[in-house]
Amino acid sequence: MKHPLKTAAIVLAMSVALPAHAQFAKAMDAIKYRKASFTVMGAHFGRLGAMANGRLAYDAAAAAANADIVAAMGKLPWAAFGEGADKGDTRAKPEIWIEAGQYKKAADNMQAAVAQLNTAAKVGDLESLKAAFGPSAATCKACHDDFRSK
Amino acid sequence: MKHPLKTAAIVLAMSVALPAHAQFAKAMDAIKYRKASFTVMGAHFGRLGAMANGRLAYDAAAAAANADIVAAMGKLPWAAFGEGADKGDTRAKPEIWIEAGQYKKAADNMQAAVAQLNTAAKVGDLESLKAAFGPSAATCKACHDDFRSK
Repeated sequence: MKHPLKTAAIVLAMSVALPAHAQFAKAMDAIKYRKASFTVMGAHFGRLGAMANGRLAYDAAAAAANADIVAAMGKLPWAAFGEGADKGDTRAKPEIWIEAGQYKKAADNMQAAVAQLNTAAKVGDLESLKAAFGPSAATCKACHDDFRSK
Repeated sequence: MKHPLKTAAIVLAMSVALPAHAQFAKAMDAIKYRKASFTVMGAHFGRLGAMANGRLAYDAAAAAANADIVAAMGKLPWAAFGEGADKGDTRAKPEIWIEAGQYKKAADNMQAAVAQLNTAAKVGDLESLKAAFGPSAATCKACHDDFRSK
């Protein structure tokens, strides 16, 4: 379970996110930033969902543009979960820091899924978007279930 | 002053932003979204400023990445200043809606300036970044002065 190389890889991969103070003056800045990036991501992800679920007319150009933003935003929040950014106006669970490797995995799953969603959105048909949307949404939910307070 | 073609061009250009309800379920969603996009933009713009002002060591790759995000985020908030999104938890002044043409101009100035900043950040030297940062920051300030409550 404690394979040294695996541990080293996780530490290395997480190192860009530590400490929060390297990129944010205060923990509250990091918290505000990560919430903001999720808010922007969620708005555009929601529009893709509305198209996938038939609540909004499918528009290939809009789908591609929304998916671009989702993919770009999906890269941002992680740097703001650094050391010291666990306390404040946040629903982030302590498990994010305690089980950092698991959190990294969940974050990676989401980024991989939204990259696929972006590719699917560029195909230009609703069926491709529908097929990729569900698995993406599942990565959001998985992470919220495990790492975000109700 | 009331050139019909100019007025038509402004109406057309603003039309993507009207009404807020086309893209946001509620006005408060639009307000939260636009604030979030400014928050993300500001964080990355601030890092460019820190490099330009010598508070942070210049890093060409980081500057380029930050400028990419600033340029992308700079396109987002405007769709969230639609009809009905003037009331709520916001410092947006009524002038945004009353003087829509002027606001559009200020928003366009910012987007043009951050596109130039992005180009400058890709040159790969601090002097280019410094030269483009000031004019960009001036477009932020101009809009805040005129259209954001203190």
